[in-house]
Amino acid sequence: MSRVVMISSDCHAGGLPEHYKPYMEKEFHAAADQWWLEYAREMMKRMGTFFDQEATEEFNARSGDQGAGRMDPNAAKQAYEASDQELWDFLCDPDSMIAPRRGEYLPDVRLQELEDDGIAGELIFPQMAPFGAGLMQYRHDISPAQSLAGNQSYNRWLADLCNKNPGRHAGVAVINVDDIDVSVKEVREAHKMGLFGGVLLPTSTGTHPFYHDYRRYEPLWSVCEELNMPIHTHSGWSPDYGDVSAATPMYISEVDMWAQRPFKALLWSGVFERHPGLKMVFTETGCGWILETLRVLDFKIDNPIFAHFTTNLSLTPREYFERQCFIGASFLPRHEIGLRYDIGTHKLMWGSDYPHMEGTWPNTMNKLRETFHDVAEGEIRDMLGLNAIDVFGFDRAAMEEAAARIGPEIGDIQQQPEAA
Amino acid sequence: MSRVVMISSDCHAGGLPEHYKPYMEKEFHAAADQWWLEYAREMMKRMGTFFDQEATEEFNARSGDQGAGRMDPNAAKQAYEASDQELWDFLCDPDSMIAPRRGEYLPDVRLQELEDDGIAGELIFPQMAPFGAGLMQYRHDISPAQSLAGNQSYNRWLADLCNKNPGRHAGVAVINVDDIDVSVKEVREAHKMGLFGGVLLPTSTGTHPFYHDYRRYEPLWSVCEELNMPIHTHSGWSPDYGDVSAATPMYISEVDMWAQRPFKALLWSGVFERHPGLKMVFTETGCGWILETLRVLDFKIDNPIFAHFTTNLSLTPREYFERQCFIGASFLPRHEIGLRYDIGTHKLMWGSDYPHMEGTWPNTMNKLRETFHDVAEGEIRDMLGLNAIDVFGFDRAAMEEAAARIGPEIGDIQQQPEAA
Repeated sequence: MSRVVMISSDCHAGGLPEHYKPYMEKEFHAAADQWWLEYAREMMKRMGTFFDQEATEEFNARSGDQGAGRMDPNAAKQAYEASDQELWDFLCDPDSMIAPRRGEYLPDVRLQELEDDGIAGELIFPQMAPFGAGLMQYRHDISPAQSLAGNQSYNRWLADLCNKNPGRHAGVAVINVDDIDVSVKEVREAHKMGLFGGVLLPTSTGTHPFYHDYRRYEPLWSVCEELNMPIHTHSGWSPDYGDVSAATPMYISEVDMWAQRPFKALLWSGVFERHPGLKMVFTETGCGWILETLRVLDFKIDNPIFAHFTTNLSLTPREYFERQCFIGASFLPRHEIGLRYDIGTHKLMWGSDYPHMEGTWPNTMNKLRETFHDVAEGEIRDMLGLNAIDVFGFDRAAMEEAAARIGPEIGDIQQQPEAA
Repeated sequence: MSRVVMISSDCHAGGLPEHYKPYMEKEFHAAADQWWLEYAREMMKRMGTFFDQEATEEFNARSGDQGAGRMDPNAAKQAYEASDQELWDFLCDPDSMIAPRRGEYLPDVRLQELEDDGIAGELIFPQMAPFGAGLMQYRHDISPAQSLAGNQSYNRWLADLCNKNPGRHAGVAVINVDDIDVSVKEVREAHKMGLFGGVLLPTSTGTHPFYHDYRRYEPLWSVCEELNMPIHTHSGWSPDYGDVSAATPMYISEVDMWAQRPFKALLWSGVFERHPGLKMVFTETGCGWILETLRVLDFKIDNPIFAHFTTNLSLTPREYFERQCFIGASFLPRHEIGLRYDIGTHKLMWGSDYPHMEGTWPNTMNKLRETFHDVAEGEIRDMLGLNAIDVFGFDRAAMEEAAARIGPEIGDIQQQPEAA
């Protein structure tokens, strides 16, 4: 029996501030340094509110010695109060608490950690990059030129990382939407650099119209369809909830919602209708929401008072979802696996969320058992890897070859998990 | 067998521009007139995009001759292009297309139309009032002083309307959240004027922090609990989706979401914990959303990494909902009645949404049959009226007396609807 091909549809990578400089025009370096300092201060101020401290320490203990990325409220307080120079040194220290883990930027370490986890291939979403490039686009007060420079430096850096282990890492390009002609150019550039994971749509469009504006965004949808670059949303952005104690729970319980919104925007503006080859992926935004969304949309379109909404749509919302959309279900918790038939096992793509604490790494095998122990083999294979091969165009033979070395047996997954 | 006591938990009322002037300080009159003109121009520009025209004409044909409120795209275009004086005359003409129906502001007509519909009592939410007082609070570019003047004029006008038929109309007061001490004063004022329906929480807080900010909003929750004034959210507000063709479908499919948000804000900031007597009602925001919301929250609070979120909460989100929250389910469509046991039949309150086209008026009896024809009598009685008596404190004897005259028999509801 062949090993299970595992592709994580949700991993993250990011470098230290200095790593991006070779990929960024010199004129932006000083402003980027300044941005990192401000960003770090904000992070330090809020550290400790995000994850439960006891759970954090437990994660630190089991996630090994691969580098930093360990949240420690005391060290954070010191860093917050440090001078600019001290904070900068801290930011550039690969062993500091705020530094990305080594596997986020060293290709050999990364591949080893993926393979130790049983994973043959992956999608790479951003961590923080210069000028807030990535998931938090439009949360930071920067100029369009800085935003572009940040995105470009991240994409170029990412392409170099991915190309060290060809075919294994599907990098997802970041763009902004300040000028759609520029966005289109960036998508072409990303495609040329080999970022075959697709394009991350900013969750917020800032002060620009949202994605239901047909006239504004049409060239972006066209180029993504033309180049077969799936468009992604990924939870991360939110409005600023301030520094009150309920800010983090609000963030955690609303963050999925913001990244779900583009589905309706593309639906109603006819994007799915006009671009049947365009693929859209919703990552780490939960699973059940799409069922509730489609349930309500079914009802709305059935109401005669809204008959004019669907005049130019040849399919129902449910049919567009079926034809073009996918769920990057990340760690796919046990409480959502029961929804798999309603959503479709061909729609769901598992992901480890490496190296995030809320993900499965470095305990992926046991987490898989929690969710999949009683799921049929074919369904497991689809959700853990085969769907992602189809959606992103991984080389199936190469993935099977890797899986033959490092993938789990189906029986490793179809067994009771160890008690937590 | 006693007649069914019907209380509509969702009706609307509003007057002509001149109706509010006796309730507003003179210094605001000129600015209010100007605001009405701008508002009317925006409405006229967008008219025709909102509801399907064929469905609109069908509604106009069956909703009788009680006044205006009839959307006609051609007349709207003329009004949009009219001079200020012509537009003002149009706004003040009780027979114009943009005017509220007479039942929205004439107490005798209103009561007659309610009773013809079988309804003994009602909650009254706003239509548009001066300076955008009401559902669209914070959508308009006005000063805090103007906003307050608009809200006060609406509340005073509404109290006079309600007090014409004592005990029958539970008016809901409108407030803004520019200065919470002022908001508290307005709640006390509304209570004194007899607006026993409660307080409408603005869906958007504009540039102010959202409702999860414990320090800012605490006095508001305290006064509402003290005076037993339920707080409401009601769908209506949205960000401006612009003038593109997908704007209205986006509005229709996101408008519920914006008004659902305060649930999590009050939950996480401990409002339900600290104010066990405070009631919260979600009106015309759908029903199924609360099940999906609670399903996801159950999962979040069960995750050790978020253990710190619930340190100060003695109940689960589901338990707070059960103790303090209610769904103003409006017309409660057939496709949601199947959810009644999951939500709780004691949580759901039907409403006609009078005089809105998307509601049941003036075909309430047939709409009730569509939804309730096979529902048990006790459940029907709870959802159609008894729950609302408890939540808002209607006089039960008075409601039963009215129902004995004008309420339906249970058998009128428990029968197959006529084909649409």
